[in-house]
Amino acid sequence: MTNFFEVSKQSLSSKARLGSINTVHGEVKTPSFIFCGTKATVKSILPHQLRSAKTQIILSNTYHLMLQPGPDIISKEKGLQNFTQWRGPMMTDSGGYQIFSLGHGSVSEEIKGKNKNIKRKSLIKISEEGAIFRNYLNGDKVYLTPERSIELQRHFGADLIFVLDECTPFNVSKKYTENSMYLSHRWAKRCSDAFKNTYSNFDSQSGSSGRQHLFGIIQGGVYEDLRKIACEETCSGDYNGLAIGGSLGGSKEQMHDIFSFCSDLIDKSKPVHVLGIGGLDDILHGVSCGYDTFDCVSPTRIARHGIMLSRLSTKGINLNNSKFKNDHSFIDEECELPEINNFSKSYLHHLFKANEILGIVILSLYNIWFMNKFFEEIRVNIQNDTFEIFKKNFLNNLTK
Amino acid sequence: MTNFFEVSKQSLSSKARLGSINTVHGEVKTPSFIFCGTKATVKSILPHQLRSAKTQIILSNTYHLMLQPGPDIISKEKGLQNFTQWRGPMMTDSGGYQIFSLGHGSVSEEIKGKNKNIKRKSLIKISEEGAIFRNYLNGDKVYLTPERSIELQRHFGADLIFVLDECTPFNVSKKYTENSMYLSHRWAKRCSDAFKNTYSNFDSQSGSSGRQHLFGIIQGGVYEDLRKIACEETCSGDYNGLAIGGSLGGSKEQMHDIFSFCSDLIDKSKPVHVLGIGGLDDILHGVSCGYDTFDCVSPTRIARHGIMLSRLSTKGINLNNSKFKNDHSFIDEECELPEINNFSKSYLHHLFKANEILGIVILSLYNIWFMNKFFEEIRVNIQNDTFEIFKKNFLNNLTK
Repeated sequence: MTNFFEVSKQSLSSKARLGSINTVHGEVKTPSFIFCGTKATVKSILPHQLRSAKTQIILSNTYHLMLQPGPDIISKEKGLQNFTQWRGPMMTDSGGYQIFSLGHGSVSEEIKGKNKNIKRKSLIKISEEGAIFRNYLNGDKVYLTPERSIELQRHFGADLIFVLDECTPFNVSKKYTENSMYLSHRWAKRCSDAFKNTYSNFDSQSGSSGRQHLFGIIQGGVYEDLRKIACEETCSGDYNGLAIGGSLGGSKEQMHDIFSFCSDLIDKSKPVHVLGIGGLDDILHGVSCGYDTFDCVSPTRIARHGIMLSRLSTKGINLNNSKFKNDHSFIDEECELPEINNFSKSYLHHLFKANEILGIVILSLYNIWFMNKFFEEIRVNIQNDTFEIFKKNFLNNLTK
Repeated sequence: MTNFFEVSKQSLSSKARLGSINTVHGEVKTPSFIFCGTKATVKSILPHQLRSAKTQIILSNTYHLMLQPGPDIISKEKGLQNFTQWRGPMMTDSGGYQIFSLGHGSVSEEIKGKNKNIKRKSLIKISEEGAIFRNYLNGDKVYLTPERSIELQRHFGADLIFVLDECTPFNVSKKYTENSMYLSHRWAKRCSDAFKNTYSNFDSQSGSSGRQHLFGIIQGGVYEDLRKIACEETCSGDYNGLAIGGSLGGSKEQMHDIFSFCSDLIDKSKPVHVLGIGGLDDILHGVSCGYDTFDCVSPTRIARHGIMLSRLSTKGINLNNSKFKNDHSFIDEECELPEINNFSKSYLHHLFKANEILGIVILSLYNIWFMNKFFEEIRVNIQNDTFEIFKKNFLNNLTK
């Protein structure tokens, strides 16, 4: 029997490693990117296109799915994989991130439907029991407890699921961060207990024997002493995987410092996920620290605004720029996707100027291909013991 | 050498016929539907997806393209086929339809970009010389004459191009319709002359020896005497193809009457296009009259509003309806496109409720497949001398 997680190669010059996460829906070769399919769709892209762009795994958000279409619909469809027709590995988050980020008003854009007015702050109350928030679709009060989050994720049936945590923001006191961390630890324990005592709707086995795998989340913000406590608590818990969550500071340096600091304290027998990180430079630093998977909305979100990922700039290339009106060169000579590799920058510029959906489709597909190619190169270089050279050269070419 | 248009089979029981329109970009087996790619894109759909759905030919609109991205950009890209990567046969209209329909305020929705305020009436003046209208993007005055329309279409390089006409609306007097028809005839002659004296930018031959083919348009509104004059004038002109344009009346009966009336007067050695018609029942009547091609925005436009074409209703099936929330059946058991045929109605309902682009992509692709399948069946039934039976059964099953 294959283990859930196996490390096949450990780098000599860093903590970077090759591994595989094995699920009933297939294998994820790590390091890997995990693409965001918030509302049970990677926006504008068909599942077969995700595959042709070599995508291994996608995630959906419990917060959005619990409100629309709701767990019953997805459960009747025999889970997210059947509902979305993405037949590969999937992850769901716990719902915590959106509740708190929306509560703090920072990412309300993300959940906005067209032509809908949404209150920016939807979080009503956090208590020991859980969180109460406002349904952005109809204004109803909604309760999310650790047990409810697990129950929802059991209905959705993703392969990798998460404990409910409070995603502590950056601009709070150390005391707030500490209290929040301890609350998250208590919630995580309740999630772990709920996980042991429940089955997925598509499974005959509960807890870690079943087809779903529970990830614990390390909080602690930017404080080393708190991160240390969080690492110890989470690594000693009964989880199949670990994740680094919460605030990673106000600068890339601080983020990379937290990456390095935690990497010495984390149990490396389990896969380690980094929540919400998609910068190419950040990913390279994370891989050096032995982290295995990364998720972020950015590749597909920036695509919807006309920006293509680039190896030359962390900001990408903005095809809305008027200089591309007359640029008849291919969007990327290196692109290996026959369905999009012959479009010119001029055509993409036109599509975005004309507000045409096809521009979003093409760039989303391009950015997905780009990220998968980037991770493929990361894996090849770890395999060849050249990852640190690859990383150094890549970072040297990348304009901040 | 293959002729531009060849009739391979003439139905025994009606005027319905099989034919082929032969262009440098390939053959169009007729009867065929022509899908609308207004701004150099069939909205949300990649060219290779059009092909997998068996699309033969698409059209773009001169009015939109002249304003954005403009003829120079498309010419530098070596024409629309290269710009859009749709390597098959293409048609452009003359710009007339949008100018006049926008002037009369009836289809302003069509050209609205997101978040833009557009004056509903953009037509400033029609004169013997041509039309003056307001650029909806920047408010500039724009001139469109017959010669300019041909020049623009020479830049775009589509295989089938159109004379400039005034697309006479329904709610005008007979006198207006008559004067407008004669103006269109004079403009058509100027277009024909301009066509003979110019080359496409991608061609070494002018006029009908070149790779582009000019279609004349039969006007005359709902008046038989005017349609008769227009048929005679247009059929005697130097055109490669003919089209039925202008108002076709206020009811389906009136439209079908005009179809029948004109069909006895039209030179059938040329392909005959029906402008702006997409109703399944109307198409069947048109095919019975010996018409070869039909274009309409409706299959893809209704898809963007959550409506799938259906053999059971001229109105289609609206997946926004709450009854589909719990309908876990496939969108269409008969659908032959593997990339979309396993999605449930419940999933599509969710995507439209959540304002997700993927819903638009899936239904656009479905409706394109549906229309191509419908025309394939029309061709098979003409081939087998069963078209009139097929038509009768089809119309019997179709709820108005």
